[in-house]
Amino acid sequence: MRLLSSDELEAGLRDIGARRYHRLHPFHHLLHGGKCSKGQVQAWALNRYYYQAMIPVKDATLIARCEDSDVRREWRSRLVDHDGAEPGDGGIARWLGLTDGLGLERDYVTSLRGLLPATRFAVDAYVSFVRDKTLLEAIASSLTELFSPVIIGERMEGMLKNYDFITAETLAYFSARPPQARRDAEYALDYVKRNARTPEQQQAVLAALEFKCSVLWAMLDALSYAYVAPRHVPPGAFVPEGDA
Amino acid sequence: MRLLSSDELEAGLRDIGARRYHRLHPFHHLLHGGKCSKGQVQAWALNRYYYQAMIPVKDATLIARCEDSDVRREWRSRLVDHDGAEPGDGGIARWLGLTDGLGLERDYVTSLRGLLPATRFAVDAYVSFVRDKTLLEAIASSLTELFSPVIIGERMEGMLKNYDFITAETLAYFSARPPQARRDAEYALDYVKRNARTPEQQQAVLAALEFKCSVLWAMLDALSYAYVAPRHVPPGAFVPEGDA
Repeated sequence: MRLLSSDELEAGLRDIGARRYHRLHPFHHLLHGGKCSKGQVQAWALNRYYYQAMIPVKDATLIARCEDSDVRREWRSRLVDHDGAEPGDGGIARWLGLTDGLGLERDYVTSLRGLLPATRFAVDAYVSFVRDKTLLEAIASSLTELFSPVIIGERMEGMLKNYDFITAETLAYFSARPPQARRDAEYALDYVKRNARTPEQQQAVLAALEFKCSVLWAMLDALSYAYVAPRHVPPGAFVPEGDA
Repeated sequence: MRLLSSDELEAGLRDIGARRYHRLHPFHHLLHGGKCSKGQVQAWALNRYYYQAMIPVKDATLIARCEDSDVRREWRSRLVDHDGAEPGDGGIARWLGLTDGLGLERDYVTSLRGLLPATRFAVDAYVSFVRDKTLLEAIASSLTELFSPVIIGERMEGMLKNYDFITAETLAYFSARPPQARRDAEYALDYVKRNARTPEQQQAVLAALEFKCSVLWAMLDALSYAYVAPRHVPPGAFVPEGDA
């Protein structure tokens, strides 16, 4: 292990994204390419809801362990993005607009009754990581946002074109995200480049991004095993109506 | 919700086992029926190693939050069972005897480098549950041991008969477990029957066992998606030699 230059560290992070970000997962090719049934899109939105709902919990967990007022103030904008300025506003509310548009009962979605256990385990692992690792690693684990504007673009274009049950209105979550993600990723990238000052810290930053990629990947593995034929829905989880 | 009799509570727990215990998972039918390749058996043993390795951490987590010396003393026998009286003794050492016998490098197994991320998330969720829920729920979550002697019997018979790379010696973990599991399950069942005194507590006990079943089930879902054809091994996880 040697100390990487700031540019080398950034290149290492971008390389992890190019190899491990869930844009590469087969489920996303199905989803964006119009190959999913409505029930499969519902299952995706229902499970991803838990991820969205826990993001402000994750961000508050990070703020709660941060002793630097400047970082806390900056990170607070993420709470605003996801929880909104008032009821009905923010990323979680927009995600529920998507599940509404897909015909899922809102109480059922927010009850988490139909969630795949593996979704819960993966998302909770992310919150635990942010609570238990160093602040540097917690911040680095957010860096999947570096890669999200591209996948969001692909998703919006693909889903609008390929599914008659999807409208621009139901995809409002995604149209709002890219500028937020760009700003957040820029801040976090700058932070890790300035604060990873030893080879060990740089390796920990790279490992944190790998970990986060594995969270997103495992969510889609579980979704695929449960809902892509041959289906293996685990006991108690959501069963789409009408799907064989 | 009404208060169940002690017998009704036990019947409810056994009913969950009959519907949700991982004995019913398709992967176990393959494993016990001789339908797995050696590489698939390796992947199973490698991933299950992390579960075995974390069981004493889980049990110590439970002891650490228990204010009753009698319960702590009783629960301590589980640490002895898994960590042994000396190096080379105990359940974890016997599990490593299995991974040795399957031709896996011990350093690779214990490094956890090849672990499926979903295995780690599921096992860590179990430890977190035992740390964060009530002591009653933590104890109830151990009750899958009620059902393990039957599956262990099926596994030993099926694996010895069906795989030439499996010997009684490599299965030493399983021959040692049933009397320990019976004693532990009896103690935990008696504890929850005596201490779940309200309908809410009884429902929490039932939910804890459902949760634990979902941990074991999710581990096999992840294993199946990754290693049963068509394989979808996630980035970085174990790839069996020679398997297509």
